[in-house]
Amino acid sequence: MAGDAQKSLHKYVPGHQKSHITLHAMRTAENSAAYLLPTLQAMAETQPHLKLLDCGAGPGTISVSLAKYMPEGEVIATDFSADVIKRAASYAEEQGATNVKCEVASIYDLPYPDGSFDVVHVHQVLTHLDEPLKAMRSMLRVCRVGGIVAVREIDMRMFNFHPETPGLLAAHQLMMSTMKAGGGSIDLGARLVSVAMQAGIQRSQIRASMGTLCYSTPEERLACGSQFRDRLKEGSMRETVLEAKLSSEQELDTLMKAWEEWMAAEDGVLGMMSGEIIVTKQ
Amino acid sequence: MAGDAQKSLHKYVPGHQKSHITLHAMRTAENSAAYLLPTLQAMAETQPHLKLLDCGAGPGTISVSLAKYMPEGEVIATDFSADVIKRAASYAEEQGATNVKCEVASIYDLPYPDGSFDVVHVHQVLTHLDEPLKAMRSMLRVCRVGGIVAVREIDMRMFNFHPETPGLLAAHQLMMSTMKAGGGSIDLGARLVSVAMQAGIQRSQIRASMGTLCYSTPEERLACGSQFRDRLKEGSMRETVLEAKLSSEQELDTLMKAWEEWMAAEDGVLGMMSGEIIVTKQ
Repeated sequence: MAGDAQKSLHKYVPGHQKSHITLHAMRTAENSAAYLLPTLQAMAETQPHLKLLDCGAGPGTISVSLAKYMPEGEVIATDFSADVIKRAASYAEEQGATNVKCEVASIYDLPYPDGSFDVVHVHQVLTHLDEPLKAMRSMLRVCRVGGIVAVREIDMRMFNFHPETPGLLAAHQLMMSTMKAGGGSIDLGARLVSVAMQAGIQRSQIRASMGTLCYSTPEERLACGSQFRDRLKEGSMRETVLEAKLSSEQELDTLMKAWEEWMAAEDGVLGMMSGEIIVTKQ
Repeated sequence: MAGDAQKSLHKYVPGHQKSHITLHAMRTAENSAAYLLPTLQAMAETQPHLKLLDCGAGPGTISVSLAKYMPEGEVIATDFSADVIKRAASYAEEQGATNVKCEVASIYDLPYPDGSFDVVHVHQVLTHLDEPLKAMRSMLRVCRVGGIVAVREIDMRMFNFHPETPGLLAAHQLMMSTMKAGGGSIDLGARLVSVAMQAGIQRSQIRASMGTLCYSTPEERLACGSQFRDRLKEGSMRETVLEAKLSSEQELDTLMKAWEEWMAAEDGVLGMMSGEIIVTKQ
């Protein structure tokens, strides 16, 4: 499993730069798992001792936030990166989230018996993987019959910019080609129903929706824009881009400037669309 | 004003076919104005006798649905089409929504004094207009100081299909070129903040978000797909397309078939993204 984790770590193309972690740390259950909350609350009411597995939890902000909706239950937050999950553990401790446990695990090979969890949650993880179907099967395996698997993954094609400058369009194209070069998906948001059905799930067991992220206030533009700029400046995305000759250093400078301009545009907006499914295991 | 209404009527490119009206009639405050509800509820609590103007209310389902959140208040639902607003009035009566009044009005020339309303709402209307800025100014005029103007408009570029077939992509392109040929916008969802600022609003007075529609169940695919197919089969969109030579009868047959196939695809999904703003008038 250490080998798996190591292999997967190399494939997290966006990298773990400071601005990337900062942007992820803005994620909460309310802004990133709103589609799940009514179901989770209903489940926690009838069954207070819920067990929830959060796969690829990153900095753990969503895990801790979800845990508040099931105070008598238990959240296991996992990530393949030991460094990242250590930070999640510190964050949970800081927040006094005593019902959150953090563990290193590969989503492909979850170290839990079949049917261990009432809820299995993943946010923006399958998109980065070579084998989203294998990950879906793995999550279904550890979910109990009658439990749910909740998945939210971005559709990278659906970036909605204002002002829509040539630089931003080029930066977006580069993001997508880098994602593909790294083995990830750019269209998983629209394919979640399809992937769940490939994993043997009936259509009638799936509830599908779409969610958005929207960055538009000065603070949001700064957090979002500097993160995308920094991916071009340093770290694993830049390395992948230059190694695979997807762009040149000179073009990257231009694209970084496009992000700077967007951050400075008072009427700047960036919307993104994610697919969401809640699968009831039968 | 009758002249204005007549002119505008000709510009509602999608047309008023039965399947189009059916799809619109699925719209409620919950699925089409969720971004507004927390603010509306908070306002109705402190000020029960709220006055809300709904511009371009179409079949009135959103107006009637909004009225439930302000039972002691009053909703004026307007549309430029006398036929359409008559249907809205019947619907309001059927639903026992005694606090909804239906009136014919052009959004450009609203027949109400300055500052008449606490809330001015519009959904999926400015996108169809030659002059969204003029409509925004008009809505701001009839809103009282301290009141809000709430706008939700689709970004037509952000259609997210699965399966993404060449026929659906072509149908989507044709929808956009027809929209532009008819004087409408395909990118207004991302431009709402910008348009409000052009109307003299400070950025700090605007809250922006993005919302989605998602069609994926068999019933949703049928309602949505047959509506888009029928726009190509008959009515004002087909006429506009053929008059402006944007497509041929033969190609339209192919595109209709693409919608049929999508309706039949068990894992079919269509997501759309809308821009949303709530402007506080100062």
